[in-house]
Amino acid sequence: MNRIYLDNAATTPLAPEVFDAMLPYLKEHFGNPSAIHAFGRKTRAAVEQARRTVAGLLNCAPGEIIFTSGGTEADNMVLNGAVRDLGVKHLITSPVEHHAVELPAHALAHHGTQVHWLRVEADGRPDLTHLEELLKATNGQGVLVSLMHANNEIGTRTDLHAVGGLCRQYGALFHSDTVQTMGHYRFDLENTPIDFLACAAHKFHGPKGVGFLYMRSGAGLKPMILGGSQERNMRAGTENIAGIVGLAKAMELAYHDLEQHQAHIQGLKDLLKKRLVEEIPGVGFNGDPGPGSLYTVLSVHFPDDGKGEMLLYNLDIEGVAVSGGSACSSGSNTGSHVLGALYPERLGANIRFSFSRYSTAAEVEHAVSVLKRIFQLVPHKA
Amino acid sequence: MNRIYLDNAATTPLAPEVFDAMLPYLKEHFGNPSAIHAFGRKTRAAVEQARRTVAGLLNCAPGEIIFTSGGTEADNMVLNGAVRDLGVKHLITSPVEHHAVELPAHALAHHGTQVHWLRVEADGRPDLTHLEELLKATNGQGVLVSLMHANNEIGTRTDLHAVGGLCRQYGALFHSDTVQTMGHYRFDLENTPIDFLACAAHKFHGPKGVGFLYMRSGAGLKPMILGGSQERNMRAGTENIAGIVGLAKAMELAYHDLEQHQAHIQGLKDLLKKRLVEEIPGVGFNGDPGPGSLYTVLSVHFPDDGKGEMLLYNLDIEGVAVSGGSACSSGSNTGSHVLGALYPERLGANIRFSFSRYSTAAEVEHAVSVLKRIFQLVPHKA
Repeated sequence: MNRIYLDNAATTPLAPEVFDAMLPYLKEHFGNPSAIHAFGRKTRAAVEQARRTVAGLLNCAPGEIIFTSGGTEADNMVLNGAVRDLGVKHLITSPVEHHAVELPAHALAHHGTQVHWLRVEADGRPDLTHLEELLKATNGQGVLVSLMHANNEIGTRTDLHAVGGLCRQYGALFHSDTVQTMGHYRFDLENTPIDFLACAAHKFHGPKGVGFLYMRSGAGLKPMILGGSQERNMRAGTENIAGIVGLAKAMELAYHDLEQHQAHIQGLKDLLKKRLVEEIPGVGFNGDPGPGSLYTVLSVHFPDDGKGEMLLYNLDIEGVAVSGGSACSSGSNTGSHVLGALYPERLGANIRFSFSRYSTAAEVEHAVSVLKRIFQLVPHKA
Repeated sequence: MNRIYLDNAATTPLAPEVFDAMLPYLKEHFGNPSAIHAFGRKTRAAVEQARRTVAGLLNCAPGEIIFTSGGTEADNMVLNGAVRDLGVKHLITSPVEHHAVELPAHALAHHGTQVHWLRVEADGRPDLTHLEELLKATNGQGVLVSLMHANNEIGTRTDLHAVGGLCRQYGALFHSDTVQTMGHYRFDLENTPIDFLACAAHKFHGPKGVGFLYMRSGAGLKPMILGGSQERNMRAGTENIAGIVGLAKAMELAYHDLEQHQAHIQGLKDLLKKRLVEEIPGVGFNGDPGPGSLYTVLSVHFPDDGKGEMLLYNLDIEGVAVSGGSACSSGSNTGSHVLGALYPERLGANIRFSFSRYSTAAEVEHAVSVLKRIFQLVPHKA
């Protein structure tokens, strides 16, 4: 079967160039970067070069990049560390955050942190008026705001400058889970009012099991994982060298021709939206499907005609890999907390289509034709 | 220069067979294991097969294996989680533990856990009489004992059954940092009185950035990293699939012909010990260099003749990669806490030689000849 993959917000294939960059650190250069001998100096140099590459692409200092095992670890480091090390008593976040933020927030609430759940607009954007009310009420003292840059399920994007500006005005710390946008949008961190952000390499054709935390210099977080003095004493454990090198290469690739791929992918998203409206009666879109939203994601609502529940399975049977809410929550079978928060009463099935630079218009057309067949708008081939 | 690598306790080269096993999960199978479509089912099956492989080799249940980013994360999970989730008020550990245990212990002490530093014998072994005294004094109630299986710097080995038996007798929990012994000794966990152990794949020719925590069924620890429902809700974050597959393959390889490689490596250790005694006057050995100690490690004490401080650097210049204390502490330039605890007054230089299945007798002889040259027992070639 000709399988097509439209679940790139869950994870992406490793770019061949990234694999090639990792290869010497899997096959040849294996020294422990903490060792002072030649084997160790070789890999330490690779890790530090990767750090400089990432920092250069984001316009921050190399020391502000802390490599982790992924975005979830980075998110956890910020939320837990802000409360433990930075005197944070109030956490302001939203009900549509990724579980990597939402679950630590619940755990902190359980242990005494005051968690304020921000109201979100109908499209999932944080209500900035409410944010300002909350910041005013707390005077910004001992406050961490954690709001994702783009929602992984519906693609709604938040203006980091608007949120960060408010945080600066009231003296609050600002963290953003940028797992869906890193490698997909340009960042100029020196000129962005943000203290922390989280990245996972596998969302932009890098390897799984590696990511980073950006921490603004002087932010003062302490490590979550203690032991050796790796990552300038910020994250203990022998470095995943091939993964770190792969992450940096994936960043380089992503930012080398970002605008070109952005235009290509936005074109596919627009095409799918147009074709679905043309072909599937009653179809709708979750969040903000317009040009202001994450260009890699289109979240589609299908009418409740009895096929909804099985839609994801039927698409898989037909060789189309897409997602319900998000991959990260699909394993748990509890449904999407994001769609639940935004559309609590609504029936029907939701499918997230998500694209990468490798996706094609032919794949979009194939997905539409499969959907038509599932909804029996065209007869099955005999 | 013909460089030789005798720093395998710091890290080991990836076995070619492990690389081959990882390759399909780097190049071809990339789906997110939490996704329900075919791409995800393929990688989920690989992760679960890896879990069954590891569990089978250790005689435990697959559900008792939780994949992590490495040994340090696993150690941190146990210490922090035992205090947070299991009512542990007393931690009994030793001053010669790896930093991955020692630093979390200090952090817990800072936050109110009573940490009891066990006396160690002259060779670094825990004093079991003292352990029993401490267990008696606390009635074993709310007690976690954390003692490493083999010391990473000096190779001294602890009897898990003896320590675990005492822990069981007094109702204490028992964790062991088995990072240096996993893949080097056989384990029969169903029949070992232990609750937790930690593994890092890169210590036995697996990839860096992956390891596991063994947690006895019902032990009740909760996750340290919160988010998605990966690892049966015990460790959030998209799985490092290639790493996990590589870890399992490295375990398979290690246990396939363990006794053969053990004999080979023990032979190299004995050869080095003999040759050093023959060739370098005043040489001595740290810990227990006998057959009861970790066969991969020989920790050597060289006389204080003024060359000591530069010995590690001179060996590197001559192409011999070895370690001072441990790689994990060498980056910090603070000296070895293990050797400091055991030999606080002693002058001279300490070098850890550590071997793998790929090490050879020729490498041992070469290292000895370089040492002779450094100590000017033979003239430099003109």
